[in-house]
Amino acid sequence: MKLFRTLIPLDEALKTVLSYAKRTEIEEFRFDDALNRVLAEDVCSPADSPPFDRAAMDGYAIKGEDSFGASQNNPVFLRKKSRRGEKEKEKEKENEIEIGEGEYLHIQTGMQLPKGSNAVVMLEYAKERGTELELFKPVTPGKNVSFKGEDVKKGEEVLKEGRLLRAHDIGMFASLFKTKVKVYKRAKVGIISTGDELLDPKESFEGEKKIADVNSYVLEALLKKIASPYRIGIVRDDYEEIKNAIRFSLEEGCDGLLISGGSSVGKRDFIADVVEDLGKLVFHGVAIRPGEPTGFGVINNKPVFVLPGYPVATISAFEMLVRPFLYAIHGVKEPRGKIFAMASKKIPSAVGRTDFVRVKLLCTENGYYAEPIRVSGSGILSSMTKSDGFVVIEENKEGVEEGEKVEVNVWEW
Amino acid sequence: MKLFRTLIPLDEALKTVLSYAKRTEIEEFRFDDALNRVLAEDVCSPADSPPFDRAAMDGYAIKGEDSFGASQNNPVFLRKKSRRGEKEKEKEKENEIEIGEGEYLHIQTGMQLPKGSNAVVMLEYAKERGTELELFKPVTPGKNVSFKGEDVKKGEEVLKEGRLLRAHDIGMFASLFKTKVKVYKRAKVGIISTGDELLDPKESFEGEKKIADVNSYVLEALLKKIASPYRIGIVRDDYEEIKNAIRFSLEEGCDGLLISGGSSVGKRDFIADVVEDLGKLVFHGVAIRPGEPTGFGVINNKPVFVLPGYPVATISAFEMLVRPFLYAIHGVKEPRGKIFAMASKKIPSAVGRTDFVRVKLLCTENGYYAEPIRVSGSGILSSMTKSDGFVVIEENKEGVEEGEKVEVNVWEW
Repeated sequence: MKLFRTLIPLDEALKTVLSYAKRTEIEEFRFDDALNRVLAEDVCSPADSPPFDRAAMDGYAIKGEDSFGASQNNPVFLRKKSRRGEKEKEKEKENEIEIGEGEYLHIQTGMQLPKGSNAVVMLEYAKERGTELELFKPVTPGKNVSFKGEDVKKGEEVLKEGRLLRAHDIGMFASLFKTKVKVYKRAKVGIISTGDELLDPKESFEGEKKIADVNSYVLEALLKKIASPYRIGIVRDDYEEIKNAIRFSLEEGCDGLLISGGSSVGKRDFIADVVEDLGKLVFHGVAIRPGEPTGFGVINNKPVFVLPGYPVATISAFEMLVRPFLYAIHGVKEPRGKIFAMASKKIPSAVGRTDFVRVKLLCTENGYYAEPIRVSGSGILSSMTKSDGFVVIEENKEGVEEGEKVEVNVWEW
Repeated sequence: MKLFRTLIPLDEALKTVLSYAKRTEIEEFRFDDALNRVLAEDVCSPADSPPFDRAAMDGYAIKGEDSFGASQNNPVFLRKKSRRGEKEKEKEKENEIEIGEGEYLHIQTGMQLPKGSNAVVMLEYAKERGTELELFKPVTPGKNVSFKGEDVKKGEEVLKEGRLLRAHDIGMFASLFKTKVKVYKRAKVGIISTGDELLDPKESFEGEKKIADVNSYVLEALLKKIASPYRIGIVRDDYEEIKNAIRFSLEEGCDGLLISGGSSVGKRDFIADVVEDLGKLVFHGVAIRPGEPTGFGVINNKPVFVLPGYPVATISAFEMLVRPFLYAIHGVKEPRGKIFAMASKKIPSAVGRTDFVRVKLLCTENGYYAEPIRVSGSGILSSMTKSDGFVVIEENKEGVEEGEKVEVNVWEW
């Protein structure tokens, strides 16, 4: 039985892993299929938005100057812009109608302001009688008008490369008539679980002592939002079988691999040996808890993560090393969602090791509290489902005191 | 031109809308297809997890009592459990091997503890020489052991009905061998944009003065995570055409409808009239800004939301009324992600109206600051893409002072 190898600090492991990150290719998508994809170009507006000065309110378009001096007791009277026959109607349709001094015209929110006008009087502040408008309040020029280019100017950058596209961005593309968008291609990531004791939960459940393959399903679900997972399934604890599974996944076009050990040890080194055999094992053993037996290697220029057998340890290693790697290759520039909270109780931690502490967030009048979930081994999957996120306790820190401020990384899906 | 109708307060509108919320049907899914679905059952564990006492560390399984008194200077010596022939090997495989007094056995993380043992000695604290173990430290019974049922006890509730399922939950199902899960069926929601001036951005872009249909794409993207959107597209400002589009969407099996007006007004009442004609218009006009012209009706027992033409107003109405309605019919019990922040500047607001203020979150040493995005009309779509979430300023509140604590609703996708 081998002793634990030397553990390298998390920051060193992360730096190493990121040094192997190569950006994925760029592909073009229809804008409305690009939700949750990472933008691979800077998007600038091809035109002003709004494309013309328009009414921001329902009301009457006027020359603001005409209203000066108006009051409840001394109203100003304006004439309705007369529409002489079809030609004028045509003009109005094309927004070419022009308002002269002392004139007004009905206008609705979003309509182009007629030439000559520069303000909109709200319905409440005027009374229309036939073709005359009684105005009780002065209106400064520009009032209730959305000016051309006020939202976005022609050529202005509206979305930056690296943006994880959300619903509003899809709307922004629509508004700019940008029908094709460049996004980073999702890496195809193979997922292998190893272990003689593992049973696929979809197979029939015989007896109480079987251990389900949890890792391949959790990793698949975690990958879904950012990459293209390819779940290969369970491979027995056999050197040649593991070797063949790795070869198979690379032949199937996987851009990278996540291989996790069974729930017992020993076979970890075993996987590492296969990686070393087929390519290069870059490191094995990281000072994080849970997740110590995490390793990283390269086969045919493809990254291979060697993950622990216990689900919580695998999730810990995923969040600490695999997710940053995936963000790097997919060009995600935004930070993860973080919330500051006070530790509701002391959280012990050993110096020389980075701890991954699952916490529940409690929202109170005085702000957020982070309640550490009782931890007693990385087999405790309920510590994940009960938590809202995790706190990283750095290597050189001897735990966190009650009431101390911590940064909570909220789970992402 | 009609004046604005009487506006009802947001809480009244919300109460009304929710009174029409009927839970969707329940369907059964394969557990690994249930990500982001809403759980429609309480899930209890069919068995203890772990299913047996197991090692939480690599090391040696012993009777803890045998180690009492051990120290660096006075080590305790234990004998390796002898394995006599095939029969014992078979037993070991079945975890039926038993450890007697003064005996030890190799054990790896996750392996079942042999009978008779009750603790695991870490590799660091012992030295094996042949079939003898030299022990330098006492180990209390229970040390480095994960006990049966420690994670989840048989019959214990692990996930509650109403849970929006995330990656860890998929893993939990796997660990419980729960292959089928009951989830709420996603409602099919029809989306119609109305407006003569609208052009589908996928059509060729002619001239600078066309207005793109943004709403149907934004609403589709917003619906994707929680419901099943059915984008019908643009309908001209014609009473009969709108009537036909509504009839069509209901014939197509839509469980509800979102109809938004063009970017100008007037036609809003027009849509409302069609709703009143085909069914019942429950309210029209809500004291929220943006989003005042929002309405709600019922046709053939199906909810119909009448939304404003401007995208930002539509998004505001969506977040304030449509999302809570969708959460209600799909049984989502969890609250939206909220962050407390300090207003970085004064945010003015009128009493008698609920304001929907887009904010950017700034993360500083002193916590979060919410920076309101310059607002000048609900056509300003960039106010959405630049923001991280929104603050609701309640009806009876006259704005927010600089430094005041506000609750930011972080955007959900």
